[in-house]
Amino acid sequence: MDLSSFLTSLVTSFVIFVVLMLLFACLSARPGNNVVYYPNRILKGLDPVESGSRIRNPLSWISEALSSTEKEVIAMSGVDTAVYFVFLSTVLGILVLSGIILLPVLLPVAITDNGAMSNSNTASNGTINELDKLSMGNITVKSPRLWAFFIATYWVSFVSLYLLWKSYKHVSCLRSEALRSPEVKPEQFAVVVRDIPTPSDGQTRKEQVDSYFKTIYPETYYRSIIVTDNKEVNKIWEELEGYKKKLARAEAVYEASKTTSKPEGTRPTNKTGFLGLLGEKVDTIEYCNEKINELAAKLESEQKVTLKEKTTNAALVFFTDRVAAASAAQSLHAQMVDTWTVFDAPEPRQLIWSNLHIKFFERELRQYVVYIIVALTIFFFMIPITFISAFTTLKNLMKFLPFIKPLVRITVLKTVLEAYLPQIALLVFLAILPKLLLFLSKLEGIPTESHAVRAASGKYFYFTVLNVFIGVTVGGTLFNTFKTIQKNPNQIVSLLANKLPGNATFFLTFVALKFFVGYGLELSRIVPLIIYHLKRKFLCKTEAELKEAWFPGDLGYGTRVPGDMLIVTIILCYSVIAPLIIPFGVLYFGLGWLILRNQALKVYVPSYESYGRMWPHINNRVLASLILFQVTMVGYFGVQRFVYAPLLIPLPISSIVFGFVCAKKFYPAFQHPALEVAAHSLKEHPNFEQIFRSFIPPSLSSDKVDDEDFEDALSRSTSFV
Amino acid sequence: MDLSSFLTSLVTSFVIFVVLMLLFACLSARPGNNVVYYPNRILKGLDPVESGSRIRNPLSWISEALSSTEKEVIAMSGVDTAVYFVFLSTVLGILVLSGIILLPVLLPVAITDNGAMSNSNTASNGTINELDKLSMGNITVKSPRLWAFFIATYWVSFVSLYLLWKSYKHVSCLRSEALRSPEVKPEQFAVVVRDIPTPSDGQTRKEQVDSYFKTIYPETYYRSIIVTDNKEVNKIWEELEGYKKKLARAEAVYEASKTTSKPEGTRPTNKTGFLGLLGEKVDTIEYCNEKINELAAKLESEQKVTLKEKTTNAALVFFTDRVAAASAAQSLHAQMVDTWTVFDAPEPRQLIWSNLHIKFFERELRQYVVYIIVALTIFFFMIPITFISAFTTLKNLMKFLPFIKPLVRITVLKTVLEAYLPQIALLVFLAILPKLLLFLSKLEGIPTESHAVRAASGKYFYFTVLNVFIGVTVGGTLFNTFKTIQKNPNQIVSLLANKLPGNATFFLTFVALKFFVGYGLELSRIVPLIIYHLKRKFLCKTEAELKEAWFPGDLGYGTRVPGDMLIVTIILCYSVIAPLIIPFGVLYFGLGWLILRNQALKVYVPSYESYGRMWPHINNRVLASLILFQVTMVGYFGVQRFVYAPLLIPLPISSIVFGFVCAKKFYPAFQHPALEVAAHSLKEHPNFEQIFRSFIPPSLSSDKVDDEDFEDALSRSTSFV
Repeated sequence: MDLSSFLTSLVTSFVIFVVLMLLFACLSARPGNNVVYYPNRILKGLDPVESGSRIRNPLSWISEALSSTEKEVIAMSGVDTAVYFVFLSTVLGILVLSGIILLPVLLPVAITDNGAMSNSNTASNGTINELDKLSMGNITVKSPRLWAFFIATYWVSFVSLYLLWKSYKHVSCLRSEALRSPEVKPEQFAVVVRDIPTPSDGQTRKEQVDSYFKTIYPETYYRSIIVTDNKEVNKIWEELEGYKKKLARAEAVYEASKTTSKPEGTRPTNKTGFLGLLGEKVDTIEYCNEKINELAAKLESEQKVTLKEKTTNAALVFFTDRVAAASAAQSLHAQMVDTWTVFDAPEPRQLIWSNLHIKFFERELRQYVVYIIVALTIFFFMIPITFISAFTTLKNLMKFLPFIKPLVRITVLKTVLEAYLPQIALLVFLAILPKLLLFLSKLEGIPTESHAVRAASGKYFYFTVLNVFIGVTVGGTLFNTFKTIQKNPNQIVSLLANKLPGNATFFLTFVALKFFVGYGLELSRIVPLIIYHLKRKFLCKTEAELKEAWFPGDLGYGTRVPGDMLIVTIILCYSVIAPLIIPFGVLYFGLGWLILRNQALKVYVPSYESYGRMWPHINNRVLASLILFQVTMVGYFGVQRFVYAPLLIPLPISSIVFGFVCAKKFYPAFQHPALEVAAHSLKEHPNFEQIFRSFIPPSLSSDKVDDEDFEDALSRSTSFV
Repeated sequence: MDLSSFLTSLVTSFVIFVVLMLLFACLSARPGNNVVYYPNRILKGLDPVESGSRIRNPLSWISEALSSTEKEVIAMSGVDTAVYFVFLSTVLGILVLSGIILLPVLLPVAITDNGAMSNSNTASNGTINELDKLSMGNITVKSPRLWAFFIATYWVSFVSLYLLWKSYKHVSCLRSEALRSPEVKPEQFAVVVRDIPTPSDGQTRKEQVDSYFKTIYPETYYRSIIVTDNKEVNKIWEELEGYKKKLARAEAVYEASKTTSKPEGTRPTNKTGFLGLLGEKVDTIEYCNEKINELAAKLESEQKVTLKEKTTNAALVFFTDRVAAASAAQSLHAQMVDTWTVFDAPEPRQLIWSNLHIKFFERELRQYVVYIIVALTIFFFMIPITFISAFTTLKNLMKFLPFIKPLVRITVLKTVLEAYLPQIALLVFLAILPKLLLFLSKLEGIPTESHAVRAASGKYFYFTVLNVFIGVTVGGTLFNTFKTIQKNPNQIVSLLANKLPGNATFFLTFVALKFFVGYGLELSRIVPLIIYHLKRKFLCKTEAELKEAWFPGDLGYGTRVPGDMLIVTIILCYSVIAPLIIPFGVLYFGLGWLILRNQALKVYVPSYESYGRMWPHINNRVLASLILFQVTMVGYFGVQRFVYAPLLIPLPISSIVFGFVCAKKFYPAFQHPALEVAAHSLKEHPNFEQIFRSFIPPSLSSDKVDDEDFEDALSRSTSFV
């Protein structure tokens, strides 16, 4: 890629970004779009626009985002979101602090060295251009100028570790503040127990669990819910809810028809067969009412059956005291450690009921099976990626797809295509995977949503780093060096170091595309806007349906964090080799911080709260990127035949020690609540009944059944002791 | 070594054993020796001989040992000892079950194969003899007879894993039974807290600790003891105790002189200078009384200073409830995990006070430093071991030490020397190390005696396996194959496999020596007997001194377990290659079980009780030996060019999985008491005051000081809340 196509790519990205920004300014000002641009505020019962009625400055969202405090973010979007911003600002800090030293020092050092490019092996790549003159590849081998790059490596490492340390400490405080809050949070009074052994004869699960915990916690034990197999009851409940919605919709249609056509209205009808296309034609309202009555009865009996007969080997246990629950969640209960295993209850909405009954060693086994599947996926995705990066140069495309030749002759189109083709292929490619990984993570038997998201995010990180970063770097010239790899599989480090400079511009455009187009789309919310208006016009009949149409998602950490991580990895690895990438990184994380701050405050509604448990995961992966950078630099200084290269070896070692110290000093407090935190007093005496009820799934709690059967089970339990 | 010297060695060992047994029979029957042969019974207040006065059958100890139950062992010597017997009987079981299949099958298979020895590389060793015909080395390469050995490998592995599993389960039960016992055990009500942060201004440590725990455990918190720096006070206390002993001794001498010489007696005198040899001559009784008074006052003031000013960042915290203590010992207390770290208190006598104040990361650092030192020790001991095994053949000795030639001409002596020289060298060599390793383990900052012993034992295990087993096996011919190793350092497995058969007889005699002479000495207690009688005659004047002279030690797990482990490793590794070693192993563990049963019931007094925490350590090391065996077998079948050798690879994998499952299913219950166990009710209401006092070290509790200062500190604490 030469300089002109690189600049074209940048300019195009920027133009798209500006267009999207203008669109946002126009569209967000129209009150009709408020539900798309300010749903989080609306749901919280606030005015969409902070300052009320006056006409908004189209750029005021920037000042609002900049002036918002961490406390406001926590209030509007929870601790997890605040922690995500800590991540963004940490990386931003690392890049800014690195940049202000590296850019003014390394660029002049690099550009004033002459004639090295012909020696350096990037020459063979056919990618020599003006940009490469700004990189370390332009330095003569063995030159004393390498000392500048050497010191820069140390500087970047030091800055990274220092800021990571500060952030970890800060996040730990955020978490403890949230957990010590005097608000009553149901999950702080509950513990999930799994792997309950088979009860002895004549004892129900309920009695077994109650007597077990009553013995250990005579003072603080409150109640238990036995986890049941809800497959059947959920099905009936969903069907019932479906008919309820259908009824509401039919009634709304009927009401509407009264005003528009005749005063008596047209009663809506539908067919009962396949997809409403076949079968008998019936009056929808009557039909739905009938079905609802039928299903309600069925649900009631199924609920009774479920509560009585479909109990599994897991339970939710409630305590009357936060310290008791926190301590119970981290203590060993049974002598046989694979029975009565406990963990601290997540929020009710996070609990994956269907995973709770999976047995201890089955979970372990599933985990390893999933790891193997993921490893295979990562490994075999290498092949298509390699093909894509090798084929998607225009020259190759023309060779293989001769029919596009006339298209390519248009110069502008050619430049744009050349600039974007590989990147777009990559982005599309990456969009397929996250769902699969989340599905696989849930298959592992992970019991909470947030944990599943973290697990999926971790897998996605390995995927992106291994396939996109290493795959593209090495694979971009894999066809040339395939035989070299086969002979020396151990030389992957020096191979990577060899190939990095050649791909600098590719990643520069990749990062630029991601922040200009990605964040532009993010802020303007074009896609959700269009979908909402289409639905409103053609589909939605009731208020509930309308709300469903605009109800926003969450920030989507499962894909967002690994995406950012890929950028972190790319920028860290190139920071010293091609310092020009740093401003791009600053723009990415700066823009990201600004735009997501707006989105977090006004748009997204978090779907769960894990009190910052994402952080250790983020910290370790930034650290992994840093270590990859440091190892690559050792390799690259070796390639440059710099005799002091081994002096860089303390860097990866100190990063590993850093990770180890973090794991020892901070990590356990992210696994379990610390008792000193849980011991803080509450604002009010908690309503235990309400806490207890909040964990009952809707399919079991509806109507009056729970009031009988749960009470029944409960009175048995209380009378038992 | 040829067959005759092997047999000589066996016969000599056996003769020594018989002599020692006869000695034991004679000596143990004399009532004057009761304190040497039955100290444990005497200390427990029982009759030395069970059946009372009648003349004992000299072999009755055997039937007594055989008929003793595990419960009796626990009652007499604690759970740790019972667990050690589980280890002995597990290994015995493995060997017996292996032997009854392997011996009748493999020996005939091996001996009926002809002419292979000339091919096998043991030929180059000059050790071909009749014994080698019974080993796998006698099988023609690629012979289908190897299938018998192949199946034998599977059988040994299966038997080992099966019995290990059963034993782990059994030990887990033993531990939980001991911990659920209704007896009040002080350590079950206490927790050790380390890494307490610096108290805020104007707050004493005591107030800080009390207020912290009162907040978290308002109901169950009882009291605390702040760990103090006792160096000074211990020194004074020891000096004081020394003078008290001296006084008692002088008084006894004076009393004795009254009866023997003149009626008024001779008042003993001593010199006050260096070692009682120089300086002024004084009346001992007066001098001691003077000193005692002086030191008592000094101690009292030092105790006050210590309690007030020398507090450290550690504390013992007491609870009024076993469950609360057990749960507190395993819960995270502080948000910063390197502060307020807790672990369950060991018995008072086990606590290493001087290690408690060491800070979190200093402990980690010390651990790694010690690991490096131990690794270096293990590595550099290879060199002397190699020399020893190469030099200590008689031929070499004669060459290097020509003056022993006339000695060697005596045939019997020559044979004996030839048989024993290398083994004795080895045994002496191994006797130096354990103290160093225990010292190093305590340097790590380990806070309890039992843990330090386990750590030392682990280090010793690596030492013996790496140096003695692998060192001797490979190093026995190292001079010949030194260059081969240098060229192919990766081929250590196949090298080991190559060298194993050649050293079979060496290890046979090693094992025989260990059990006949080692256990003979153990049972007869010749050395403690002689020491006791010498002391009684010449040194001891008072009852207390006499008791000190016969007071027995404990079983000494720190060296005993690794010693046994070395035998386990040797026998497992040779079990299929040279099945003749199995009967030797059976004898070793059978005799060991019998003789140590006697010693545990009658002689040794355990110096601590860790409720079987040694077991996971033992289990993992037996497993490691098994894996070494399996890997060696894969290598050895490779050497024998058996094409199905890769079919053995599932064996080490399944052993690793086994270890993993054990660690998940059983191990945590050995780290911390399970709550269901701690929740069992007690026989009586515990006396908390007594529990609390039992943890105060003698140097701080003597006289009346504690009653003032501790009470003072305590009343402050109780009034504080």
